[in-house]
Amino acid sequence: MDDQAHGACNRLEPVFDLLGKRWTGLVLGALMEGPARFSELARTIDGVSERMLTERLNELGDVGLVERHVLPGPPVGVEYRLTERGKALEPALDALAAWAEDHLAEDR
Amino acid sequence: MDDQAHGACNRLEPVFDLLGKRWTGLVLGALMEGPARFSELARTIDGVSERMLTERLNELGDVGLVERHVLPGPPVGVEYRLTERGKALEPALDALAAWAEDHLAEDR
Repeated sequence: MDDQAHGACNRLEPVFDLLGKRWTGLVLGALMEGPARFSELARTIDGVSERMLTERLNELGDVGLVERHVLPGPPVGVEYRLTERGKALEPALDALAAWAEDHLAEDR
Repeated sequence: MDDQAHGACNRLEPVFDLLGKRWTGLVLGALMEGPARFSELARTIDGVSERMLTERLNELGDVGLVERHVLPGPPVGVEYRLTERGKALEPALDALAAWAEDHLAEDR
């Protein structure tokens, strides 16, 4: 292996630092379908606790992938949605999901 | 959100179960550059311990993404390489890396 291999590792490292945390990919996948309230996300993502969902949404907010949007109401509410930066992840997540369907499905 | 959102989550779940573990993406990224010996991988992937690298290579072998190949020698050696299933991940990992370069680089 050469410097290029080092390069590939380094390019992927920040992605997996972020997406490698449990639930993060699923939160993004859910928000790809459109903005959602906390309660909708909690219901859609099987098994996530409210505490973990809050933590992941905050992390995704900190890196500028998700934003919190206050709905004017009534009734007043809050929804989460992807920023442009977050939406730009969609092709890559779609490619991952397509790969999983083709190559992991038979094991499950 | 509707059933489609559930679908997106479910499609991504097996991928992140696998890639979400620390080092897994980096091991795959390194092997995308070509077959490598254990010592080369350990050197390329900054900070991974031999124990963790062994564990990740075994997991990737179990799901059929990486195979162990004995080099006839002399000197006899072992290298790790991607299977066809593992190579099929490359476009998705490239898309992730491209996204990271465009959208995460400015924070680092």
